[in-house]
Amino acid sequence: MRDSVKVFAPATVANVVCGFDVLGFAVNAPGDEVIMRLVDEPGVKITKITGDDGRLPLDPAKNTVSASVQDYLKHIGREDAGITIELHKKMPIGSGLGSSSASTVAGLFAVNTLFGNLLSRKELVPFAMKGEELACGYGHADNVAPALMGGFVLVRSYEPLDVISLPFPEDLCAAIVYPEVDVPTKDARQMIRSKVFLKDAVKQWGNVAGLVSGLYTSDYDLIGRSMVDVLVEPVRSILIPEFYAMRQLAMDLGAVGFGISGSGPSVFALTRNQETARKITDALQARLKTVQINSLSFVSPVNAKGPVVLD
Amino acid sequence: MRDSVKVFAPATVANVVCGFDVLGFAVNAPGDEVIMRLVDEPGVKITKITGDDGRLPLDPAKNTVSASVQDYLKHIGREDAGITIELHKKMPIGSGLGSSSASTVAGLFAVNTLFGNLLSRKELVPFAMKGEELACGYGHADNVAPALMGGFVLVRSYEPLDVISLPFPEDLCAAIVYPEVDVPTKDARQMIRSKVFLKDAVKQWGNVAGLVSGLYTSDYDLIGRSMVDVLVEPVRSILIPEFYAMRQLAMDLGAVGFGISGSGPSVFALTRNQETARKITDALQARLKTVQINSLSFVSPVNAKGPVVLD
Repeated sequence: MRDSVKVFAPATVANVVCGFDVLGFAVNAPGDEVIMRLVDEPGVKITKITGDDGRLPLDPAKNTVSASVQDYLKHIGREDAGITIELHKKMPIGSGLGSSSASTVAGLFAVNTLFGNLLSRKELVPFAMKGEELACGYGHADNVAPALMGGFVLVRSYEPLDVISLPFPEDLCAAIVYPEVDVPTKDARQMIRSKVFLKDAVKQWGNVAGLVSGLYTSDYDLIGRSMVDVLVEPVRSILIPEFYAMRQLAMDLGAVGFGISGSGPSVFALTRNQETARKITDALQARLKTVQINSLSFVSPVNAKGPVVLD
Repeated sequence: MRDSVKVFAPATVANVVCGFDVLGFAVNAPGDEVIMRLVDEPGVKITKITGDDGRLPLDPAKNTVSASVQDYLKHIGREDAGITIELHKKMPIGSGLGSSSASTVAGLFAVNTLFGNLLSRKELVPFAMKGEELACGYGHADNVAPALMGGFVLVRSYEPLDVISLPFPEDLCAAIVYPEVDVPTKDARQMIRSKVFLKDAVKQWGNVAGLVSGLYTSDYDLIGRSMVDVLVEPVRSILIPEFYAMRQLAMDLGAVGFGISGSGPSVFALTRNQETARKITDALQARLKTVQINSLSFVSPVNAKGPVVLD
């Protein structure tokens, strides 16, 4: 049995335009790394965090990584265990790319590996959701489920939790751009109205059904036609500079579809190949530059693996 | 070229519980028949209607069958044609089984056959939708599209119209019971609130996505878990006697899922075989009998063909 492990867990794009709170997918980059060690002294400690500019708590009860690891240990009856955690953040916080999910999932995957994979990836989802609740006040699964399971994931139901892996076209790529503006998840959620017109909801679930169908049949056109959000995007896009200009650029360059990643401010396009994705990130970053906004970009195939052990 | 044709078009179950206004499937029975003849005298005439108890108009401009045939002829530039129509209704009107759709689709399929199949089944959908508008004040497609195309159909979008055939498990059967009470489609629609809670809409599109996924993977359990409607059924079920008792009976007898067909009052269960479907219709009809309500029942595999030429 190993006494230490290094794990990478991927960033995720939640909602996928039409699937608010029920769809998400993982990417190969960016993502976070956790190094976990079994030690003699009981308790879970965070010994180091890099890449967070001092924004994340070191207190084990307040940090989502250590808190969910503690939950896991309690569940398997090993609260006596001694564990140290190094968290290496390799992606921006508050970017709408499932930053807290990637960290939490890396930690849970690491502790599960150290204790002999007692739980399946699916069984880890509820532990990661508790971490999300700590991070953003709302225990959603549309980031943590794809981060744990890889690929596209449908969260069909929260009570009871029912999480389903969906297929996707082999060549499907994501072009992601993170404009460096601040959109806290909590605020982004509060902008959304609690009631919606039924006729708009009907449009939305027609599109969700179309997207799922397109994923099963590798029908890029159908995937693209279905990536329409009449409910949430019109509100959240207000917080994202140049949103509609970026959409136009992405679609003109051959994107399958374009939208907000999670609660933003990151935006993403799905593409048929990495070359198109690269052209799109270049164009969007250039556009943001014209309004003096710095940005980061990531190009990646859809991640099929979820978290991986690195050493 | 033939100068007469007899066509059968199938009844349909719209909504399929969670897919309000976007999903529907066809069954082998019941359904309607149209006999159409080319005649010398120009114009479209209805010469005979049977099985309607005198409820349907013979005026060609007011009857959905003749009106949509006239639209078709106009579209192909053959308003000069002479056509007589016999409509044989073999299913109850106002039952929630797509009665008007079956008639309209039979007529359109017949005229398209007589004129050399100038349009595809998919291209006939908009003509049938105009017929629905005439019949029930609302041009929906979740009955006419499956009636025309067979199987399960997703109406992803109405503007522009985007209709997608979905696969389904080969053995999937439907058990249908029509309680003989009156629920006009217009009234059933008016009961539904125009605004809904976003959190309920999220549940609904999670289920729609789950149902589509289950149809692609022939996962009966997932299909069943997804057949939940938190928005429309709680309201419409009020108009259907013994609704929740019938659900319990159907589920206890092994139904995959159970719900209202279209706007009711017919109810349906999906089952893994015809034997289970038969047991369910027997039990539901017996239950309705205890509250002095007569009913009709139909047991059928999901119809894969849509309309067929009978002679």
